[in-house]
Amino acid sequence: MQGQAQQQAYDRGITIFSPDGRLYQVEYAREAVKRGTASIGIRTDDGVVLAADKRSRSPLMEPTSVEKIHKADNHAGIASAGHVADARQLIDFARRQAQINRLRYSEPIGIETLTKEVTDHIQQYTQVGGARPFGVALLIGGIEDGEPRLYETDPSGTPYEWKAVSIGANRGDLQEYLEENYADGLDLDGGIELALRALATSNDDTLEPAGVDVATVSVDTEEFHELDNDEIERHLTDLDLLPSEDDEDADDGEE
Amino acid sequence: MQGQAQQQAYDRGITIFSPDGRLYQVEYAREAVKRGTASIGIRTDDGVVLAADKRSRSPLMEPTSVEKIHKADNHAGIASAGHVADARQLIDFARRQAQINRLRYSEPIGIETLTKEVTDHIQQYTQVGGARPFGVALLIGGIEDGEPRLYETDPSGTPYEWKAVSIGANRGDLQEYLEENYADGLDLDGGIELALRALATSNDDTLEPAGVDVATVSVDTEEFHELDNDEIERHLTDLDLLPSEDDEDADDGEE
Amino acid sequence: MQGQAQQQAYDRGITIFSPDGRLYQVEYAREAVKRGTASIGIRTDDGVVLAADKRSRSPLMEPTSVEKIHKADNHAGIASAGHVADARQLIDFARRQAQINRLRYSEPIGIETLTKEVTDHIQQYTQVGGARPFGVALLIGGIEDGEPRLYETDPSGTPYEWKAVSIGANRGDLQEYLEENYADGLDLDGGIELALRALATSNDDTLEPAGVDVATVSVDTEEFHELDNDEIERHLTDLDLLPSEDDEDADDGEE
Amino acid sequence: MQGQAQQQAYDRGITIFSPDGRLYQVEYAREAVKRGTASIGIRTDDGVVLAADKRSRSPLMEPTSVEKIHKADNHAGIASAGHVADARQLIDFARRQAQINRLRYSEPIGIETLTKEVTDHIQQYTQVGGARPFGVALLIGGIEDGEPRLYETDPSGTPYEWKAVSIGANRGDLQEYLEENYADGLDLDGGIELALRALATSNDDTLEPAGVDVATVSVDTEEFHELDNDEIERHLTDLDLLPSEDDEDADDGEE
Amino acid sequence: MQGQAQQQAYDRGITIFSPDGRLYQVEYAREAVKRGTASIGIRTDDGVVLAADKRSRSPLMEPTSVEKIHKADNHAGIASAGHVADARQLIDFARRQAQINRLRYSEPIGIETLTKEVTDHIQQYTQVGGARPFGVALLIGGIEDGEPRLYETDPSGTPYEWKAVSIGANRGDLQEYLEENYADGLDLDGGIELALRALATSNDDTLEPAGVDVATVSVDTEEFHELDNDEIERHLTDLDLLPSEDDEDADDGEE
Amino acid sequence: MQGQAQQQAYDRGITIFSPDGRLYQVEYAREAVKRGTASIGIRTDDGVVLAADKRSRSPLMEPTSVEKIHKADNHAGIASAGHVADARQLIDFARRQAQINRLRYSEPIGIETLTKEVTDHIQQYTQVGGARPFGVALLIGGIEDGEPRLYETDPSGTPYEWKAVSIGANRGDLQEYLEENYADGLDLDGGIELALRALATSNDDTLEPAGVDVATVSVDTEEFHELDNDEIERHLTDLDLLPSEDDEDADDGEE
Amino acid sequence: MQGQAQQQAYDRGITIFSPDGRLYQVEYAREAVKRGTASIGIRTDDGVVLAADKRSRSPLMEPTSVEKIHKADNHAGIASAGHVADARQLIDFARRQAQINRLRYSEPIGIETLTKEVTDHIQQYTQVGGARPFGVALLIGGIEDGEPRLYETDPSGTPYEWKAVSIGANRGDLQEYLEENYADGLDLDGGIELALRALATSNDDTLEPAGVDVATVSVDTEEFHELDNDEIERHLTDLDLLPSEDDEDADDGEE
Repeated sequence: MQGQAQQQAYDRGITIFSPDGRLYQVEYAREAVKRGTASIGIRTDDGVVLAADKRSRSPLMEPTSVEKIHKADNHAGIASAGHVADARQLIDFARRQAQINRLRYSEPIGIETLTKEVTDHIQQYTQVGGARPFGVALLIGGIEDGEPRLYETDPSGTPYEWKAVSIGANRGDLQEYLEENYADGLDLDGGIELALRALATSNDDTLEPAGVDVATVSVDTEEFHELDNDEIERHLTDLDLLPSEDDEDADDGEE
Repeated sequence: MQGQAQQQAYDRGITIFSPDGRLYQVEYAREAVKRGTASIGIRTDDGVVLAADKRSRSPLMEPTSVEKIHKADNHAGIASAGHVADARQLIDFARRQAQINRLRYSEPIGIETLTKEVTDHIQQYTQVGGARPFGVALLIGGIEDGEPRLYETDPSGTPYEWKAVSIGANRGDLQEYLEENYADGLDLDGGIELALRALATSNDDTLEPAGVDVATVSVDTEEFHELDNDEIERHLTDLDLLPSEDDEDADDGEE
Repeated sequence: MQGQAQQQAYDRGITIFSPDGRLYQVEYAREAVKRGTASIGIRTDDGVVLAADKRSRSPLMEPTSVEKIHKADNHAGIASAGHVADARQLIDFARRQAQINRLRYSEPIGIETLTKEVTDHIQQYTQVGGARPFGVALLIGGIEDGEPRLYETDPSGTPYEWKAVSIGANRGDLQEYLEENYADGLDLDGGIELALRALATSNDDTLEPAGVDVATVSVDTEEFHELDNDEIERHLTDLDLLPSEDDEDADDGEE
Repeated sequence: MQGQAQQQAYDRGITIFSPDGRLYQVEYAREAVKRGTASIGIRTDDGVVLAADKRSRSPLMEPTSVEKIHKADNHAGIASAGHVADARQLIDFARRQAQINRLRYSEPIGIETLTKEVTDHIQQYTQVGGARPFGVALLIGGIEDGEPRLYETDPSGTPYEWKAVSIGANRGDLQEYLEENYADGLDLDGGIELALRALATSNDDTLEPAGVDVATVSVDTEEFHELDNDEIERHLTDLDLLPSEDDEDADDGEE
Repeated sequence: MQGQAQQQAYDRGITIFSPDGRLYQVEYAREAVKRGTASIGIRTDDGVVLAADKRSRSPLMEPTSVEKIHKADNHAGIASAGHVADARQLIDFARRQAQINRLRYSEPIGIETLTKEVTDHIQQYTQVGGARPFGVALLIGGIEDGEPRLYETDPSGTPYEWKAVSIGANRGDLQEYLEENYADGLDLDGGIELALRALATSNDDTLEPAGVDVATVSVDTEEFHELDNDEIERHLTDLDLLPSEDDEDADDGEE
Repeated sequence: MQGQAQQQAYDRGITIFSPDGRLYQVEYAREAVKRGTASIGIRTDDGVVLAADKRSRSPLMEPTSVEKIHKADNHAGIASAGHVADARQLIDFARRQAQINRLRYSEPIGIETLTKEVTDHIQQYTQVGGARPFGVALLIGGIEDGEPRLYETDPSGTPYEWKAVSIGANRGDLQEYLEENYADGLDLDGGIELALRALATSNDDTLEPAGVDVATVSVDTEEFHELDNDEIERHLTDLDLLPSEDDEDADDGEE
Repeated sequence: MQGQAQQQAYDRGITIFSPDGRLYQVEYAREAVKRGTASIGIRTDDGVVLAADKRSRSPLMEPTSVEKIHKADNHAGIASAGHVADARQLIDFARRQAQINRLRYSEPIGIETLTKEVTDHIQQYTQVGGARPFGVALLIGGIEDGEPRLYETDPSGTPYEWKAVSIGANRGDLQEYLEENYADGLDLDGGIELALRALATSNDDTLEPAGVDVATVSVDTEEFHELDNDEIERHLTDLDLLPSEDDEDADDGEE
């Protein structure tokens, strides 16, 4: 009862510090991220790979409507995990920042700059009253000055740069898998395969083509490219990850 | 008592995260949706069908005043479930967006664009303080680039695209019915029949013509068309769903 | 005690959802409507009848000062039940909308349009913080395109169209009476008689001329007409509803 | 304890509905009115009489400083009961409305119009957050189109028109006295006598000239006239209401 | 415990009514007045006398820095009791009003007008949220149209006019003393003596010249005049009120 | 437990009155002052002396960075005790007021005027919601019209003028020491010595030169002068107050 | 339980004083600082050294993305400890202040001025409602007028100047280490070695080159210089602090 009463005190009104220096609303927003299905980012020598688990709630739902990976600009993509409606707000914010950069400086926005404008925006929602934090984590990947870059944003508004990273459900297991299996010198296909194998670990080592989103931004083209169903199926076939039967779960507004 | 005290903490003031990363006010708004009578959307090859259960509280109430399906623009309709007064606000918002699009670009607004402008609007009410979330779900259906499209919006502000979907009371059973009975290649009449049969399942397999709203947007005309009483009666007769006696219930501001 | 603690949680600050999807402040506002004396609306072929029970608190109070029926525009009247001071605000709002319509379009405002502008206004007070909902229900009756129309607004901001309807105290009994006794093809006098008989049922089948307000908007004249004491007395005499002795009660700001 | 906990819930922050549809803050404001000494209004054929009990807290206090009756405009007066500082705000508001009317339309403001502008102002303080209701009731009397009019405003913002009415302490007894003793066809002196006799009933049937305020607005002059000490003493002598010894009580900011 | 819980309910946020119609924050502000040392005002035929007990906290404190009496304008002075910092705000407000009056109308502001502008300002802080009431009472004395006038303002914003009045500590006893000893026809010196004798009653019938402030506004000069130490000592000597030894107490921000 | 519950009621939201007329937040701010190390002001015939205990938290901390005495203008200095960051705000405010005065009137601001502008600023933070009071007391000393003046401001916003005064830790003991040892006719050196002896009493009658700040504003120069380490050491040597070993304590943001 | 209930009272809404004069939200923000990994600043005769422990959460995280030391301007650097997203806000604020200074005065901003603009900004967040304090401490080091300067800012907004200082985890032990080992006359390399040895004490006397950030601002160049991996490794080799095996921990948004 004590623990509960204590929690209540830090949940009301605005985001404030607990006696041990934590921001409960931000930590609870991290729980909203964990309730979403996983997204994975892999930085390879040839570009960045974004992949996402997007299990549909029903066979009648259009798989394309469960958006987990979005184009932010020609040279940049964003994968999300957590509260879907919040993700949409941040992605729109990122797109506007990218457009403004092109208008002002006639050049694509740097991936680090883009990430930090997003995290500054997120931070404001954790300090100023009258709104709750964003319940979503993002992976922002793209090409900057010819180099692949991959960033994570979390609900506190902290940016992290990664070689390979997982957000959302089962982050602990997936990150461990990535640490064990990531190797320098990967090409894009290697990155796609690592991402798919990782996602499959939490799904009995199988994946439906329609249940996964994959996108790349290659160093060569500097173009965001979303793989179509056939491309994904080809990868899954090569990796022997295609299921014999499907498995669908419902979740509520978190992916 | 613990559970109750905990709930109270997350219900006051603004919409904030619970320790497990949920937004209680949004989940309670989903309960308001479930308190409303059901609406169903069916996407067929020939267009979109919207159908809604609209039981009147009294034989003296004008059936037309229980509005469950609305024209959003020439080529788009909206069905709702939940808090009626909230639905009216969102539908007015959608209509204004559609008009603005015609004025600015001299063309009908895309169904996906329309849906996302509505869900962005809904999301704001779940993050910024000083107002409660919208207690209503919408089905937005219409024709975009010659193709039928059908979307759902929920109180979190998440958009979903569907082949066939149910919102409001008995969603679980109705969605199950749709999954079992939906087939690709339906024409508009097939869509109407599937929607009416589904709605009838929660009403002892009967429906009053005045107790149901049906509208279509066909690929051919790209025009929103609301079926009149006679058309609906003809369908119900064909389907043998006309009741021998009527059954009226009261509800309070939810439909 | 649990129920009470739970209620408290949803009563403070702004209007928010309860765990079962209800808006308690709106439901409590409906209780304020029930605390007011009854008003009745009847739609006949020849026009709309509005009637209201307006028991005075004291023989020294001017009966005309207990306003239950108001002219909204030449062709439209409004009866109210509930918190009197709130009713005055909404009626003033309705009058301004009607005037604006005449100024802008040089024609009388449609009864449906008028009703929906009022209900949109009411809805705002149930969603945006910083104010309580309106504790009043209205009956809005008038002529639109030569047709009689009769609407109800409730504290949630939902509009309903009726053939015959009762708001305020004893709604359940009065509505049942109307359902049993309403018949299509009524003329205005038939409507007045039905309304008076219904109001009398909750008053030992008697009514004081000064204790009731009656107004009509006929299809012929399209003019709001409030019956004077003699006209009302003549109707009550015809219907044998005049009491042998009077009976006065006090209430506080609700009528 | 339950009742108390429940009350607390509806007393905080803004004025909101209780589960039975009541506005506690407004009802508590009515208690503030009851804590004030009584004021009485009488409408006669020849004009309106306002009278007020204004017991001083100390023989050293200037009796004129306990203002209970105020001139609102040449043709209108206002008596108050309840929180004095609140009364002053409303009376200033009324005076400004009367002046504005003279400036705009070059004619005296109607008594009904004046009353309703005051009650609309009062109502706002019961619905919009950030302020408490006014803890005062007013009697507004004057001449409109040659006719005497007498209105009451209460803390909910409801206007009532009366032939004779009492506000403040002992309202129940005083109103009963007025109902038993008021007769049509009174002249101004008859009205003054009725008011003084009524006030005296709660004071052992005696009144100090300095302990009562009396003012009239006659149909003939259409001028607000406040009786001086001698005039009041003459009336009290005629009515045999002069006390043999005085009796002074203290109260705090309510009169 | 009940009383305490009940009090808490009315102390938070803004100033609201208690169930018995009282404004607790205003009543608590009256307690702040009682915590201050006494001030006395006497109206004589020749002018107004203001006197104040101003015990210093330490012999090292400059007696002049404990300001209890202030010049508001040439013809008007103000004595205070209660929260010193609040008094300074109101006195500055009063001075600005007096200056504005001189600028606008080229004449000294009326004492009644000045008082009522101050009380209207005070009242706002008791009704509108976001601030607490002023914890101070004022005595405003001066000459208006050749006549001496003496007013009191209290934390509710009510103005009272007095012949002789005491505010602050021991008001009950001091007011009783004034009632017993005040007589019409006093001259200024008589007024000063009455004030000093009254203040001395709560100090073992002695007063230090440095422990009391005295000021007058005479009808002749219409000038605010603050007595210097010698003048006060002369009066105290004449009245045999000089102490044999001094007595100093500390208080916190209330005088 | 009762006392605690009661305290809680007055600590939330804004600064409000307790039932006995106290402002708890202001009293708690006074506690913040007591948590700071002592500052002392002495008014002598030749000028004002400000002295402050400024124990450093660590031998590595720059002693000059623990600012306790500040130049407000050429002719005025300010010493503080309490919350350091709050002190900086008020000192900046005072400096701006002094500059504005020079710009507007081409003359140095009066010490009394400067003090009262600061206390008015402080008072606002005790009455208007949305901010907490300042947790700091100031000593403002300087020359006005050739005369030395010394003022104290406290967290309520009350100004006091002193011959000699102590703020911060051990105020009771230090003020008692000053009362016993202050004598009229002191010169500046006498004032410095009294201040240093007083500060030493709470430090085993020793002081480190680096552990004390001393500044003067002399009548001759009308210039603020901060003593350097050597000057202070010379005084301490003369007074035999130099310690044999040092003693350092930590505190958190209060000095 | 008492302690807990008491804490709750001071945690809600805005930052307010506790009965003993403390600001709990500021103290809790200091706990957030302690949760971050340590940063150290050393002032030497040749310039300022900033060093920071920056343990990565995963071998896949880019060490450069865990930013603990930032360039504020050519001549100034900032190290942080605590809530990373908050640190970014303050560092951006500091950079803007430095740029504004260069634009306005065409010269580098003073390190003391820069620090005080940052602490004034921090203080506002501890006094005005609607936001929480910053959960971060900064070390601001640079060259001002040819002299090395080193400042600390804490969550209360207090600036401190240091010869050598540690913020973040293990402050107590690290500060003790610095006090024992700091000596006047250090050169830059000596400063770097002291900082690295201190950081290593809390890490079993070993440091990974990638796990530590080091930067200098030398008096000679007046340029901020961040050491690269090789430079750091050379220092660690010289100091025999290189580990035989690595050790990685996770933390959440605090560094």
